[in-house]
Amino acid sequence: MKKVTVHSPATVANVVCGFDILGFALNSPMDELSIAFSDEPGVTIINEDDYSLPTKAEDNVSGAALLAMLEELPDVKGFTLYSKKNIKPGSGIGSSAASAAGAVVAANHLLENRFTNADLVRFAMFGEKVASGVKHADNIAPAIYGGVTLIRSIFPLDIISLDAPELHVTVVHPQIEVRTSDARQILKQKVSLKDAIKQWGNIAGLVAGFLQHDYDLIGRSLEDVIIEPVRSILIPGFDEVKSNCKDAGALGGGISGSGPSIFMLSKDAAAALAVETAMKEVYNKIGLAYHTHVTTINKQGVKIVASDNS
Amino acid sequence: MKKVTVHSPATVANVVCGFDILGFALNSPMDELSIAFSDEPGVTIINEDDYSLPTKAEDNVSGAALLAMLEELPDVKGFTLYSKKNIKPGSGIGSSAASAAGAVVAANHLLENRFTNADLVRFAMFGEKVASGVKHADNIAPAIYGGVTLIRSIFPLDIISLDAPELHVTVVHPQIEVRTSDARQILKQKVSLKDAIKQWGNIAGLVAGFLQHDYDLIGRSLEDVIIEPVRSILIPGFDEVKSNCKDAGALGGGISGSGPSIFMLSKDAAAALAVETAMKEVYNKIGLAYHTHVTTINKQGVKIVASDNS
Repeated sequence: MKKVTVHSPATVANVVCGFDILGFALNSPMDELSIAFSDEPGVTIINEDDYSLPTKAEDNVSGAALLAMLEELPDVKGFTLYSKKNIKPGSGIGSSAASAAGAVVAANHLLENRFTNADLVRFAMFGEKVASGVKHADNIAPAIYGGVTLIRSIFPLDIISLDAPELHVTVVHPQIEVRTSDARQILKQKVSLKDAIKQWGNIAGLVAGFLQHDYDLIGRSLEDVIIEPVRSILIPGFDEVKSNCKDAGALGGGISGSGPSIFMLSKDAAAALAVETAMKEVYNKIGLAYHTHVTTINKQGVKIVASDNS
Repeated sequence: MKKVTVHSPATVANVVCGFDILGFALNSPMDELSIAFSDEPGVTIINEDDYSLPTKAEDNVSGAALLAMLEELPDVKGFTLYSKKNIKPGSGIGSSAASAAGAVVAANHLLENRFTNADLVRFAMFGEKVASGVKHADNIAPAIYGGVTLIRSIFPLDIISLDAPELHVTVVHPQIEVRTSDARQILKQKVSLKDAIKQWGNIAGLVAGFLQHDYDLIGRSLEDVIIEPVRSILIPGFDEVKSNCKDAGALGGGISGSGPSIFMLSKDAAAALAVETAMKEVYNKIGLAYHTHVTTINKQGVKIVASDNS
């Protein structure tokens, strides 16, 4: 039976001023997922890690995405999915998106690429709905397309890949839990026109900074006057991390997804490491456990690492 | 006495989803302004057209801009400014910005370019304040820099030139009066987060469309869910013009500045002319007088056309 194995990347969504519309993929950490056709109807989930994620397909992020795909595959009975997660669920770096995106890209390879990337995003969003109650694509799209992606619109789906310059990313994951649904609930449903204008000036600047490979402009545009002031309250040490990381050489950064992870972008590897040190110092002082990742933007997205008949 | 003459372009501000942050310059119409040093203190205004604009410097758009410049010129006593306007005041295509930008660029040439473009924008905004009560740069910046400009922030001033592809512009100016201050007053001061997200998805898409020279993306992103639904009510025939122009081949468009002019972007000259016909048909049917302009995006901004010692 043919088996396809993929590595599916962590992703940073929102990207400060790009709430709900921007995301990028990371070169680490990555989940490993394998898939094979099955004679059992539906999706059989086999977890190969210690996270005790649900094995009932409807309740499992990968499972829900694959079930959505199966609806459009009258000739396929079922899949068996093996999942080995390295991206901690609830960390805010797209753990659920990695599960959903990895599963559908692997399945599509098994199906000899019957679907387009846009189809795969559509299926994978069913996984996001299981995870957070909302179909959003700002982690899914960069996981599948790689690089920096703009989701101009979800209905209809309009994804644009932005050719960003080389960027180094430092992430700190303080070990507290912020539920995506909670982080969404505390947002104000009305914003002032003045703040909205400031925000769209910044998102326009950030997109221009990426496309013109203008690091200073990227740095200046990484400002969020709407979401961050509300959500950062949920993350101990946020203001200090942000300020110290900029002093250490980061271009800028903010909350990754809905948190609690914080990401920072830097122009080179040395700055990204200095930023990591700054992050560690803050959480060592607070006495809060954490993980850090020092990596780069992943241009490829989900990667096929094995495709064998065993 | 040395005299410098410039042509100062009309401009389209806001550009649908880019309220307060985006603008571009047009190759026509243009105002003609000339300037010379004067032994009279302050700014002497000589109008060479029939618009009866104020000649008291403080109340005149060009005058206010030049007075702001004079504050930083202890060695200059005064200027004499000759103004011949072709851009009708109140048309919504940056008539006041052309007066202010033209005056300061001409003066700067007289001063052998003592000031930067950013300085000139700063001075010219004093002219905009006289015209509309608000210092805004979304007409001034493209008039001075040329092309498509993003004003990421006004305080501090952060202007980014965006390298857009060749674009044809059709403008219709229905002969009604919409005062900028009125158009500003009817705006809601609070917007829903949902609409704000849609808007910043579109502005991000529009900037990406310009920089990636992606005409379809430009067209898809020319959508305004916040300002246009409110302001378009002030412009008779707006919805019909927009819909018929798209049918005629326009990529998209909307209110120019705060109106009443409507602009449309097209990929080629033939489409821009078909769009003009569509505009004319609507206003002929309504029975409202109008002017149209069929032109292209002006890459240069204010242009020195003569610099002589007479």
